[in-house]
Amino acid sequence: MTTYLLERAWVDGRVLDDVLVEIDGGRFTSVTSVGSTRDSRRFSGVATAEKRGNTRLTGDPNDATPLPGLTIPGLANCHSHAFHRALRGRTQRDRGTFWTWRDQMYDVAARLDPDTYLELATATYREMAAAGITCVGEFHYLHHQPDGTPYDDPNAMGKVLIEAARRAGIRITLLDTCYLSSGFGKPPEGPQVRFSDGDVDAWVDRVNAIGPWEHAHIGGAYHSVRAVPLNQMKRYTTAPLHIHLSEQVAENDACLAEYGLTPTQVFAEAGHLTENNTLVHATHLTDDDIRLIGETRTYSCFCPTTERDLGDGVGPSRELHDAGSRLTLGSDSHAVIDLFEEMRAVELDERLATQQRGHWDAAELLEAGTRHDSLGWADAGRIAVGARADLVTIATDSVRTAGTGADEQTAVFAAVAEDVIQVVADGHVVFRADDRAQLGRDLEAVIGRLWR
Amino acid sequence: MTTYLLERAWVDGRVLDDVLVEIDGGRFTSVTSVGSTRDSRRFSGVATAEKRGNTRLTGDPNDATPLPGLTIPGLANCHSHAFHRALRGRTQRDRGTFWTWRDQMYDVAARLDPDTYLELATATYREMAAAGITCVGEFHYLHHQPDGTPYDDPNAMGKVLIEAARRAGIRITLLDTCYLSSGFGKPPEGPQVRFSDGDVDAWVDRVNAIGPWEHAHIGGAYHSVRAVPLNQMKRYTTAPLHIHLSEQVAENDACLAEYGLTPTQVFAEAGHLTENNTLVHATHLTDDDIRLIGETRTYSCFCPTTERDLGDGVGPSRELHDAGSRLTLGSDSHAVIDLFEEMRAVELDERLATQQRGHWDAAELLEAGTRHDSLGWADAGRIAVGARADLVTIATDSVRTAGTGADEQTAVFAAVAEDVIQVVADGHVVFRADDRAQLGRDLEAVIGRLWR
Repeated sequence: MTTYLLERAWVDGRVLDDVLVEIDGGRFTSVTSVGSTRDSRRFSGVATAEKRGNTRLTGDPNDATPLPGLTIPGLANCHSHAFHRALRGRTQRDRGTFWTWRDQMYDVAARLDPDTYLELATATYREMAAAGITCVGEFHYLHHQPDGTPYDDPNAMGKVLIEAARRAGIRITLLDTCYLSSGFGKPPEGPQVRFSDGDVDAWVDRVNAIGPWEHAHIGGAYHSVRAVPLNQMKRYTTAPLHIHLSEQVAENDACLAEYGLTPTQVFAEAGHLTENNTLVHATHLTDDDIRLIGETRTYSCFCPTTERDLGDGVGPSRELHDAGSRLTLGSDSHAVIDLFEEMRAVELDERLATQQRGHWDAAELLEAGTRHDSLGWADAGRIAVGARADLVTIATDSVRTAGTGADEQTAVFAAVAEDVIQVVADGHVVFRADDRAQLGRDLEAVIGRLWR
Repeated sequence: MTTYLLERAWVDGRVLDDVLVEIDGGRFTSVTSVGSTRDSRRFSGVATAEKRGNTRLTGDPNDATPLPGLTIPGLANCHSHAFHRALRGRTQRDRGTFWTWRDQMYDVAARLDPDTYLELATATYREMAAAGITCVGEFHYLHHQPDGTPYDDPNAMGKVLIEAARRAGIRITLLDTCYLSSGFGKPPEGPQVRFSDGDVDAWVDRVNAIGPWEHAHIGGAYHSVRAVPLNQMKRYTTAPLHIHLSEQVAENDACLAEYGLTPTQVFAEAGHLTENNTLVHATHLTDDDIRLIGETRTYSCFCPTTERDLGDGVGPSRELHDAGSRLTLGSDSHAVIDLFEEMRAVELDERLATQQRGHWDAAELLEAGTRHDSLGWADAGRIAVGARADLVTIATDSVRTAGTGADEQTAVFAAVAEDVIQVVADGHVVFRADDRAQLGRDLEAVIGRLWR
């Protein structure tokens, strides 16, 4: 058993001082507020020391490992393309659009094989762990050899990602992605032959052969309404199921021309608007789309730093929430891997779009950033008895965070990834601040080899 | 004399490897590319080693202090209100607007006296130095005692800011600010009595009594068209002269109602649209405003992280540039002190507004971030013989920057303030990475005392 004494912690929607947590078998076995604090009253799932009676508290605060700073639950990065990390800082030279950026992204995709992807994904997931991310949803479509032939193990690339997460010490939900067409009615072109299984049956057969792991769930994704025809998309579902949706106006236009339906209506028609599934981006929606998404409680995964980088626009995050959708966050293209930045960007971009402040408060954004259930890990993302023991500790006296009050506003509106000083995932320490310099050098070496 | 060997450096608009710089009397006395590099040819103001002939190079690369990483000129923070640093992370609780935020800002203003402001501004300027900022333009209006009575020295507060910059090791341009009215035709209210000199003559008399300093220029500012009547604004000018302009639509509307003119037209009518002067924000402009600003080559100072935070909107940065205005940058309210973030935010917010990429390239944004002339320091902001010796060195193998190519895209699109590993200002080392942890603790102590 491991015992930590958290100086301040985000527990059940508020900040408490002096929280003792006991961890056994990778889960919290007790969570107790022991301090004479301004907020030490008993609340759901947590006992104060003087009232602990029948809780399972066995540790002594004096024996616990103290964690100074503000500790929050593990962050969930719900939308990742690991290999995009190699593009950071390399796509900013010329004018262009989402579509010209995509050509550069395909250039990296063409360079990878299972060995180099294992190296790159391991370094990328270690960067995530260092940023307080304890679980990644990997939207994975780089399945086959450069000429489209499957590897000897047709799941070689997917297994590389699962192994990379294991090495980084974080959980993964492999969202194995079905990608069949370059556009509406067009076969895969160029690097896209690596993505395609030919038809949805072959995709399902391949995915079903990926074995179970302790730290990995297998989910599915339809890449987009342009990459999977509606009649194919209708045939299979899985949970969780993700899709890129309405990131670009051009996709909406082409979809309307093909089906007379918006991408949201296509996904609904296929039967996939459900409370287990996630729409990634959801940027350009009609009022009717928002109503449909909200009624079905489908998740909306926003990736604001990528949406800025690619010039996607500002999606209706608050309207989706108010309609019933639950917000999740992803670092997507990894131009930035920093969920603190993603959390505040949701609010800040909404301010730019509306010239009003206060659409989302820090508590709501912290809930979005730590929400693991859209990846199939409903037992994570809270500091509570029985939950998976993830702890992300942020310095509250760094240059960024000093003077900001050491509360949820500090985490959401001031901190950066560099303020993370320790990360525990499933009970194990997977990052300490002292590891940061070596991780930088490792990333430089791995990405340097790729571009050489 | 001090000699540095820069592993990579941004010199005259490009990145060079192995640049030897000699510094004497606070200025560069030689700048020489000594490496067998991909870009070691001779160019303006710089000699390669083998051609150095009549340059004043006297140092031996083997005796130089090596600076690994990417070194850029000093960054200029052209719009600062130092005391706003105490608000970081404390204004995000409720719904509201720019105007409700302003009430919270006034609450901090009311707490400060010369002693506490010296502490706070020193810590804030040290945070700037740690972020690679070697010069600050301080838009200073907190002049008098809480009841509006001048201090025994009527410039006590301004002198505190000049002393704070000295202690932090950076240059300052004190933009002493004239603030006469709460709104069009309204006297100062509440905390605003600390800001007002009564009339423009009294303001000029006070400012003229601030003495000269080695590291400080004295400039002026009219707070805004709402705070200074046009007939007063017409009577005096100084250089540089700054003004908050068209940050909020409500200000534009009130200005049109009062004068039948936009704020830009008012400032033009007063005779202040000139190539020495700066319009801060310049967010909500007409096409005619943009033409006027461009024709007169007036600077536009954008503060994107503050403009996000306050929901100001996205100003027409590229249109202003294309019309002839020169872009500068400021961290303004210090919700963030990170000019790397400000540089990229200009481009990223323009992408959100237009759904296109590539409005500004990294070289242009780096030029904006290092542009010192709008603060009256035309001899700074370049690594060149005769220029003030400012050197900001960024790690190129940090978790953020690794793999990004160690060039201007690294600085503008990947780095954060935490990647700064050494800062030289006017020839003196004013920050090393090892100082960062103590600086955080000092900020926490100073701001903590203020809120207690």
